[in-house]
Amino acid sequence: MKLIRYGTFGREKIGVQIDGVNYDTTAFGSDYDERFFEENGLARLAQFVKDNLEQLIEIPKDSRIAVPFARPSKIVCIGLNYRDHAEETGANIPAEPIIFMKSTTALIGPNDNVIIPKNSVKTDWEVEFGIVIGKKATYVKESEALDYVAGYVLHNDISERDFQLERGGTWDKGKGCDTFAPMGPVLTTKEEIPDINNLRLWLKVNGKKCQEGNTKNLIFSVEHVVAYVSQFMTLLPGDVISTGTPAGVGLGFNPPIYLKAGDVIELGAEYLGEQRQDVVAWQE
Amino acid sequence: MKLIRYGTFGREKIGVQIDGVNYDTTAFGSDYDERFFEENGLARLAQFVKDNLEQLIEIPKDSRIAVPFARPSKIVCIGLNYRDHAEETGANIPAEPIIFMKSTTALIGPNDNVIIPKNSVKTDWEVEFGIVIGKKATYVKESEALDYVAGYVLHNDISERDFQLERGGTWDKGKGCDTFAPMGPVLTTKEEIPDINNLRLWLKVNGKKCQEGNTKNLIFSVEHVVAYVSQFMTLLPGDVISTGTPAGVGLGFNPPIYLKAGDVIELGAEYLGEQRQDVVAWQE
Repeated sequence: MKLIRYGTFGREKIGVQIDGVNYDTTAFGSDYDERFFEENGLARLAQFVKDNLEQLIEIPKDSRIAVPFARPSKIVCIGLNYRDHAEETGANIPAEPIIFMKSTTALIGPNDNVIIPKNSVKTDWEVEFGIVIGKKATYVKESEALDYVAGYVLHNDISERDFQLERGGTWDKGKGCDTFAPMGPVLTTKEEIPDINNLRLWLKVNGKKCQEGNTKNLIFSVEHVVAYVSQFMTLLPGDVISTGTPAGVGLGFNPPIYLKAGDVIELGAEYLGEQRQDVVAWQE
Repeated sequence: MKLIRYGTFGREKIGVQIDGVNYDTTAFGSDYDERFFEENGLARLAQFVKDNLEQLIEIPKDSRIAVPFARPSKIVCIGLNYRDHAEETGANIPAEPIIFMKSTTALIGPNDNVIIPKNSVKTDWEVEFGIVIGKKATYVKESEALDYVAGYVLHNDISERDFQLERGGTWDKGKGCDTFAPMGPVLTTKEEIPDINNLRLWLKVNGKKCQEGNTKNLIFSVEHVVAYVSQFMTLLPGDVISTGTPAGVGLGFNPPIYLKAGDVIELGAEYLGEQRQDVVAWQE
């Protein structure tokens, strides 16, 4: 199943995508939020769609596509989780996953504008995929980790490298600016993906391919990452763990290339759909 | 005004504290959450209390006291914000605030048990106070920062030093374990405190005074911290910024002293009340 949400920011409606067509499921009754995942919402939604297949109404073609789930309690991210990306940034291969957190106020729909923050000099892109948690996870074993996963989502982990790396403290400072977390267009449930640890993902800036990776090159697999994070904090239904980015970010070019107003970012991943963002300047 | 919440974890009721006595305000109708702060809830609650003063019912004496507001969208913390604490940890005085984030799943009431996490070897205490945001804050000026503050709350920023400092990546790994954020007993609104940047705070372990500080020794003031964080992420109504701890944490002793099952932590701050936690071992 592929879940979508659409409509005005903050007043999103729910839907599903079937064979590439988006249908409204407002009649299902509840948003795709923590309680939805907790109370077996995916199975109930699948039944609802099955029972109402003939009556589902296509959403207007010009609808804004939103993040495919309600605001989670947290977004945890894994840093330097592809060998080639660690190398391009001059970092060592991490001995265990690097964790940082992203403010949920950064969330935007997959095709919304990315705003270069005030005082930014190094706004960068990062194609990755997020793991959406399906049930409360504390001290989970790697062998059971996938039981706690609802599905996956495409994520452009926009990063301000100066804020992240040169302003003291932790990476969180350069990861949570408004519009820095485009997610969507779909939440693809796990059974739709034959092998999450073998998935192509790519990103272009102004039509030029910058990132081209495959999740088989993850240093730490989906199962490992879910189990690992759950040793340090409880993951709630609907929470997102973003898994890291392959090589080809702006910071990795010589000299580095950063985003500027007018740029267009396109990205995608097998089974997870595509995004397209216009980059705009911050305005008072 | 002093806000409280009480009752079973996850099903808290609301109240206010007047002259040290806790009264139920369930009839006010809405939890102390993002919408409450956003929609002028503090002023409405003050009016409700004034109008119903004679009818308010005292809460049962044996009630569990909870976090005095609903789960916020995020907890942002400032690291090394007291000169003496930076020195005791061997760190340099930061040139600008250090930011990290704490999972909101760490929140517990002020007198709930603190659980030493599985595999923990260095669980430590940190008395501090949190700033509770009153309205949406983005790119706020320092001179206007207090307009965005609802009030303040006592916080024991429990920290696992091995997870935080020796496991790679950012501090977030050692700050968000379950039970690592006792907050309360009260949210004291800002007008009740003559000068937030001149407030005594203290912490004892097993009756022995370990921390004794004053917010006048903050490296970065409340106004500075609110303005600063809002340059990197939008703060939502109800969000918390915890402001850092003075000297006297376990890590600062020679040799370091860490928490063990059976320990009792007591802490307090002027105008913000007191907390008491029993430290217990993690159990499967």
